[in-house]
Amino acid sequence: MSNADKHDLNGGFYLEDLHVGQRFASGTHAVDEAQIKAFAGQFDPQPFHLDDATAKHTMFAGLAASGWHTAAITMRLLVDGGAPIAGGVIGAGGEIAWPKPTRPGDILQVKSEILDVTPSRSRPDRGMVTVRSETFNQRGEIVQTLTAKLIVPRRPAA
Amino acid sequence: MSNADKHDLNGGFYLEDLHVGQRFASGTHAVDEAQIKAFAGQFDPQPFHLDDATAKHTMFAGLAASGWHTAAITMRLLVDGGAPIAGGVIGAGGEIAWPKPTRPGDILQVKSEILDVTPSRSRPDRGMVTVRSETFNQRGEIVQTLTAKLIVPRRPAA
Repeated sequence: MSNADKHDLNGGFYLEDLHVGQRFASGTHAVDEAQIKAFAGQFDPQPFHLDDATAKHTMFAGLAASGWHTAAITMRLLVDGGAPIAGGVIGAGGEIAWPKPTRPGDILQVKSEILDVTPSRSRPDRGMVTVRSETFNQRGEIVQTLTAKLIVPRRPAA
Repeated sequence: MSNADKHDLNGGFYLEDLHVGQRFASGTHAVDEAQIKAFAGQFDPQPFHLDDATAKHTMFAGLAASGWHTAAITMRLLVDGGAPIAGGVIGAGGEIAWPKPTRPGDILQVKSEILDVTPSRSRPDRGMVTVRSETFNQRGEIVQTLTAKLIVPRRPAA
């Protein structure tokens, strides 16, 4: 884990501090059944996210978190230090996949790697950084991959 | 809106009922400041999603919803009838982009179009359907595009 690399005291790395291959690791978040049902009740009220007994007879074969819940938890882990970017974690978009569902009792952690760093041609104060973030459960299985394009500021002139 | 096309009474379209070019429209959801701050407080606690005054001086130039909040609201609109798929809306992943932020007071609606329908070779009971879902605000601006791969069951033998 290279979070300590060259970390700006004002809250993260500027575009100039980031390079292809750089890696970050987040803290962890423990997911329980109450969280899964609360998120699903609000945003994804389908039986396999809400009801244990019904979920057993679906494709998920048991209660599973909404993929968007896994995405939201991943974002929280990135914001809490898993992606220490100056100015915050601001995504323009990306590709997401959920190879396995998040289950009650899972402990999630996000490991990220910088894939590309491109200064903006039109906006000299910023650039675009491509980051692949893999969200792991406590068994080392990947529950989400996210390849995101982040808008990252350049270091302001002193 | 062609939701009434050939709708299965048991809760949605099977793979056989879907075809390229088919369109669906969701209901609407009104987003307010309290919702934006509640979601951000839990999943994306960054100043531009939490504090009006601070947000004015960021890239967002005012309070904006987390992109993941827009995604979660989009999912709710799809589940509530915007994507009437038999067995539910089950995504394997997709591509997401947020061309504009969701703002307090926005009224969101999702319009979807089927881009591809492919029966599974290995699993005769299902297939993969690619759907592009655009989330609009009340000014007709697109706040999110999502091109998702959904797992859709075939109609069971009678």
